[in-house]
Amino acid sequence: MDSYVIGVDIGGTGTKYGIVDKDGNVLHSSSMATNTHEQVHTYIDELYEKVSELIEKVGGVGRIKGIGVGAPNGNIYTGTIEYAPNLPWKGIIPFAKMLQDKFKLPVKLTNDANAAAVGEMMYGAAKGMKDFIMITLGTGVGGAAVIDRKIFLGGDGNAMEPGHVPSKNGKVLERNVGKKELLQMANRMRAEYTGETSLPSDGTISTTALVVAAEEGDALAQAIWDEVGTLLGDMLVSLIRILDIKNIFIGGGLSASFDFIVPSMEKQLNYWLTPAYLEKLTIKKALLGNDAGLLGAASLCF
Amino acid sequence: MDSYVIGVDIGGTGTKYGIVDKDGNVLHSSSMATNTHEQVHTYIDELYEKVSELIEKVGGVGRIKGIGVGAPNGNIYTGTIEYAPNLPWKGIIPFAKMLQDKFKLPVKLTNDANAAAVGEMMYGAAKGMKDFIMITLGTGVGGAAVIDRKIFLGGDGNAMEPGHVPSKNGKVLERNVGKKELLQMANRMRAEYTGETSLPSDGTISTTALVVAAEEGDALAQAIWDEVGTLLGDMLVSLIRILDIKNIFIGGGLSASFDFIVPSMEKQLNYWLTPAYLEKLTIKKALLGNDAGLLGAASLCF
Repeated sequence: MDSYVIGVDIGGTGTKYGIVDKDGNVLHSSSMATNTHEQVHTYIDELYEKVSELIEKVGGVGRIKGIGVGAPNGNIYTGTIEYAPNLPWKGIIPFAKMLQDKFKLPVKLTNDANAAAVGEMMYGAAKGMKDFIMITLGTGVGGAAVIDRKIFLGGDGNAMEPGHVPSKNGKVLERNVGKKELLQMANRMRAEYTGETSLPSDGTISTTALVVAAEEGDALAQAIWDEVGTLLGDMLVSLIRILDIKNIFIGGGLSASFDFIVPSMEKQLNYWLTPAYLEKLTIKKALLGNDAGLLGAASLCF
Repeated sequence: MDSYVIGVDIGGTGTKYGIVDKDGNVLHSSSMATNTHEQVHTYIDELYEKVSELIEKVGGVGRIKGIGVGAPNGNIYTGTIEYAPNLPWKGIIPFAKMLQDKFKLPVKLTNDANAAAVGEMMYGAAKGMKDFIMITLGTGVGGAAVIDRKIFLGGDGNAMEPGHVPSKNGKVLERNVGKKELLQMANRMRAEYTGETSLPSDGTISTTALVVAAEEGDALAQAIWDEVGTLLGDMLVSLIRILDIKNIFIGGGLSASFDFIVPSMEKQLNYWLTPAYLEKLTIKKALLGNDAGLLGAASLCF
């Protein structure tokens, strides 16, 4: 009988979880809120309850090899989540250990963006690729790099935090273009805007509305995405110059905006980089979308 | 009989060369101008002539195992110097091959900052260290990273170009704080300055004068170094967040300013980084000074 793995992709807003087979098929999946749980214990209790329902659907826990987790600020060496600014739980959380005690199953944990990169490398847009950078856009801005087909861990294991590099207004990048800050900027720009736009003026712009409006050619929506692309583009220049990697993938929940952030992103890349870089540069949307993290996390256990 | 290696450290302004034994002793060394040679051929002719004098002093070419070269934009895989913005020679120069043909000796070539990092790791401040970042200040701003005791080459071999990350005024970092631009800034700030200062007002400030004035407590000189440290500090934050390395060494000709750039550099690091990083962070001056590149380049041949 085939055995399966539970993949868990923890985001700042929500958590996706699912049952995955060794070929990367997601047999069953669902999601739950992350940010409603002030305490990690109640979060794990809810996750246990929800995941157990899926486990029953595939024939019980005897079919499950283990649980792979992708988490913001997850440390693959220690199985802990460390000082995650986009999660409700502060300090160092021994998450893998806690999950193992609850489920009585082996647990492997890594950084969420690393999990997404592994997912794309094994089953998605980066299949067979030697070197690439993965940027995940969501509550925060995550990153991962694959060099010689291996996740780049840097010196102490927590490499690739592009959301935390200096950006505009004395703030790090993700405090300018993370989901919450992006919407604050959008509502601010809407309040000052006198042209025609379909975006609401009462402070309730959503990221979905921003994508839909941009698709319909709304100039204000495009201007907002332009600002996001410009800041991301400058960060990418630094990454490319430091890592000398020229394949870029954009994933995460906000990558639905891909077509609208790319023009201003490319403008920055063209401004800062020399032809030797630009000739080989590719920027693509990640393929697996919301499943990349879940699949990559699950693959830790195969 | 012991055999020796020629080390060559090519800088944008000058070139240092010397004869090195396997313990990292520089037996003889000297320097010549780089930037007076429009053509790489005349540069190699002069280098051959000058180095031959040193070779005679140690008993002739029979005692020489090979030549190790550190060069801006040097590529260790191909032995070429590629599109170096701070050298007079444009395009891709097959430098190792040219030197080998001239000297009839094996030649190994690497990036100048990588050479300096290897020098510090083998004989200097970073001896025995597992992970560190080396920044070289001079005509340009160079960089190297050592991870698990190996030079970090990134995806395509040219990793670590911190001088080329976006910085102020729409310019990359080294076009703000490279030697020439630093002096332009200093002369500009001097022209606008109305306080007391020992710096000349006729546009002839030198980097030596800037260091001496800062040592004497000159407020304008310190303000100029503060600006340099601030820009370098922001770049270091990006490097630390991307590479997760917490040991930093500052080398290169302009590292004589170390004591005067560190305060503003640390201010930026304290502003942007969290305690988890700051607790382990060290910033030190490289030990080998001008000999780091030469020794590191030479060590390629031992």
